[in-house]
Amino acid sequence: MKKIIVQKFGGTSVADTDKIKNVARLVIREKELGNDVVVVVSAMGHTTDHLVKLAHDINPNPSARELDMLMSTGECVSMSLLTMAIQACGYKAISYNAAQIGIITENVHTKARIIDIKTDKLRESLDEGNIIIIAGFQSVTEDGEITTLGRGGSDTSAVAIASALNAERCDIYTDVEGVYTTDPRIVPNASKLDEISYEEMLELAHAGANVLHPRSVETAKHSAVPLRVRSSFKCEDMGTLILGVEKMEINKPVAGVAVDLSQVRVVVCDIPDTPGEAATLFSSLAKENISVDMIIQSYARKVSNTNDIAFTINKEDLDKTKSILDVVVKDLGAKEVSFDENIAKISIIGAGMIDRPGIASTMFRTLAENNINIRMISTSEIKISCLIDKENSQNAIKSLHEVFNLGCDTIADVKGTLPDV
Amino acid sequence: MKKIIVQKFGGTSVADTDKIKNVARLVIREKELGNDVVVVVSAMGHTTDHLVKLAHDINPNPSARELDMLMSTGECVSMSLLTMAIQACGYKAISYNAAQIGIITENVHTKARIIDIKTDKLRESLDEGNIIIIAGFQSVTEDGEITTLGRGGSDTSAVAIASALNAERCDIYTDVEGVYTTDPRIVPNASKLDEISYEEMLELAHAGANVLHPRSVETAKHSAVPLRVRSSFKCEDMGTLILGVEKMEINKPVAGVAVDLSQVRVVVCDIPDTPGEAATLFSSLAKENISVDMIIQSYARKVSNTNDIAFTINKEDLDKTKSILDVVVKDLGAKEVSFDENIAKISIIGAGMIDRPGIASTMFRTLAENNINIRMISTSEIKISCLIDKENSQNAIKSLHEVFNLGCDTIADVKGTLPDV
Repeated sequence: MKKIIVQKFGGTSVADTDKIKNVARLVIREKELGNDVVVVVSAMGHTTDHLVKLAHDINPNPSARELDMLMSTGECVSMSLLTMAIQACGYKAISYNAAQIGIITENVHTKARIIDIKTDKLRESLDEGNIIIIAGFQSVTEDGEITTLGRGGSDTSAVAIASALNAERCDIYTDVEGVYTTDPRIVPNASKLDEISYEEMLELAHAGANVLHPRSVETAKHSAVPLRVRSSFKCEDMGTLILGVEKMEINKPVAGVAVDLSQVRVVVCDIPDTPGEAATLFSSLAKENISVDMIIQSYARKVSNTNDIAFTINKEDLDKTKSILDVVVKDLGAKEVSFDENIAKISIIGAGMIDRPGIASTMFRTLAENNINIRMISTSEIKISCLIDKENSQNAIKSLHEVFNLGCDTIADVKGTLPDV
Repeated sequence: MKKIIVQKFGGTSVADTDKIKNVARLVIREKELGNDVVVVVSAMGHTTDHLVKLAHDINPNPSARELDMLMSTGECVSMSLLTMAIQACGYKAISYNAAQIGIITENVHTKARIIDIKTDKLRESLDEGNIIIIAGFQSVTEDGEITTLGRGGSDTSAVAIASALNAERCDIYTDVEGVYTTDPRIVPNASKLDEISYEEMLELAHAGANVLHPRSVETAKHSAVPLRVRSSFKCEDMGTLILGVEKMEINKPVAGVAVDLSQVRVVVCDIPDTPGEAATLFSSLAKENISVDMIIQSYARKVSNTNDIAFTINKEDLDKTKSILDVVVKDLGAKEVSFDENIAKISIIGAGMIDRPGIASTMFRTLAENNINIRMISTSEIKISCLIDKENSQNAIKSLHEVFNLGCDTIADVKGTLPDV
C-alpha cells in the first residue's frame, strides 16, 4: 500500500491564483514521489476576516450557527480552485467538503471538537488514483449542521485527517520556514530547528510562538503523527519536523526562547486566610471560561492573617475578569485588586532540561546580570517562564538566546508574518 | 394552516450589507402579514462571475464538478448574512443549503434539473416559527454531489420550492419593477403589466425579455404557482403577477412587444431536393445541443430541383454551427452557406390574439408602412415574430407598441438593468 502524506496550506499560501498554482506544484511533487496525497486548505488570504466583518456590519451579535454557515464558505472556494489547478497539470483530483466526507463534531458552533472522521470515501477516491483536496476548518454534526473548528482549525483538520488515515506524515505549509529558536526579528541569528518534540512545540505555542495552534499539536501528539512545518515559498527547505521526544536525539538542554505579550497580571491583595479562598476565586473565573496561566500565592501574613494571590490572564479576558472580580473580591473580603498590562512572559523551553540541573538558575542569573527584575516564575517539566516588565523583553530574549547557545552563524532570512512583539 | 409565501431575491438585491438589511425588511413585512415565509437568495452582486473568472484564470477548462463546488459558495454567503440581518430585527430565522434540505437533481453538473425537493425539514422549521432562508442555484444529487441549476437557477429554485410547499405565491424580487409592454428605454411610455399569463411570459422570455428565466416560468406553469415579479427597491409597487391564462381577464389582444438581438440568420442555398435533407441538417445541429429558432424552407425550384433552407441560431453557437455546417453542407451537396448577424427578431405576444383575426396583418402592414422589410416570419398560438434588419428594430418596436395601443399616459420610471438593445 502507498504511503499517505497529508499536506495543509494556510491562507497566505493560497492567497491568489498564482499562489494556488504554486501550491498545485507542491502537491504534485509529493504525488510524484510515489505517495498518495490528501490536501487540506484554508480560505484564501483574509477571506474569513472579511466574512466576519460583513457579519458584524449586519448584526453585532451574529448567531454562532449562521457564522459557521458563513465562514465555512471560504475553504470551499480555495478547495475547488486548487483542485482545478491540479487538474490543469493533468493529474486526477477531487475536492470534498466536510459534510461530504463526514468530519463529525459535537454540536457546538464556532469551536467544535472533532469526534469522528469517516474514511470510506477518502480511501475509495485514493484507490481511484485521485489527489484529494479537503476544505479545512469546517465540520458537521451527526445531523448535518455545519460547524467550524475555531482558531487554527485547518491545522486541526489536517492532523485529524492524517491520524484517521494513518498517514506517514502531515506537512503544514505556511509562510514561515519552520520553528525557530526565537523570533528572528528580535534575534537575527535565531536558528531554525530541524526537529522539535510535540511537548516542546506545545510549550512554545502556549508561550506565544504561534506557528501552529496548540490543539493541532496535541492531536498529532495523541496519535503520534509526525508533523512538518515548512514554507510554501522556499519549498526545497525541509522546515522543522515535530515528533515524539523518544525519537529525537537531544543535544541542547534548551530548544527555544519564547515571549508572550498578551498576558495581564492580576493581584488580589489581603485576602483573609480562610480555607477555600483560592478555589472560590478561580472557580468563578473558570465558570466564565477565563483561562488563568501563572498563579502565585504568597505566604499568609502572620499579623493580619491575610494572603495575596497573583495570577495572569489573557488581555482578551480583561474586561470580563474585572467585572467578575468586582463581586468576588467583596465576597472574599479582600482589600484591593490591581491589574498590570505592562508585562511580558519570557519562557525557555526544552525537553533536554529534564535531567539537567542548573538551567533555571542560569536563566535567573542571566536576567539578573541584565538588570531585569523577575516578577513571577512558573515552571513545567520542559519550560521555565518568568514574568518581567515589558520594556525588558527584547533584552531578555537576546541574552537568554545567547547564554543557551541557540544562535546559528547566519542571519535568518525572515519572510512572512511572525507574531508581533 | 398559515399561507406560505416564497420570496426570491437576486444578486443586485443583496449586493451589499445595506441592501441585505433592506431585503430583511421586505421579508419581515411578509411575515408580519401573517404568512409563513421561505426566502431564496442568489449570490451577492457579481460574486458568481468573479468566481468563474478565478476558475478560468487557473484552468481554461475547469471540470464541471469543481465549478459547481466553487459557484455554490456564493449563495451560502448571502444566505447566512440575510439570516443574521433578520435575526438582528428580533425574528426567528434559519438558513439551509441545498444539501441540508435535499434539493435533489439528476447527476449532471452546471445545469442540473430538479427531480425532488424534500419538505420535512422546511415544514418542521416553519412550525417552529422560523423564517427560512435557502441558498438558490445550488442542489445535490442523491449521492451528495453538489450540482447547480444553470442560468436563472435561483428563480428555478424558488419556484420549485414554492411548488413543493404548495405555496400561495412566489415573489421574484428583482431590480426592475415588473414586466413591461416593451423595453421602456426604447418606448418611454411603455406600461407595466399588472398581469400576464405563463404562456405570454414564456414567449416574452424566449423573445428576449430576460426578466425571468423561461425554465422558472415553465416550472411555475406546470404546478400553477402564481409568480409575482416586483422591485426590491420600490417595494410598495405590486409589480406584475404571472398566472394561468384561465384566471385572467384579457382586454387587449397584444400584451407586449419584444426584441431579440442575439440571433444569427443562416441560409443554406441550393440543397438538392431529396427526402430527409432537412432532417440531416437539423439533427446534426441538435446533436451538438444547438437550438434552432425560426425555420423556413423555400419551395423547391423546378429547374434545378434544389431547395433553400433558412433558420436562426443564437450568436453563442455561431462558431460551432459554422464548423458543423462545413461538413454537413458538403454531404448534402448544397452550394453555399451564408450567415447574417445584422438582424433583429421582433415579436408581438398576447394570449388575446388567439381568437382575434387580423393581428398578424396589422403587424405586417405597420412594418411595411415604416419601410421595414420582413426577412422571415414565424408564429405560435400567442406570438408572431418577424426577422428584420437590426437598424430598423427601434422603429419597429415603437410603431408596433403604438398600433397595438400598449402605451400608458406616463413616462416609465426605469431603474435597474434591462436587457441591452
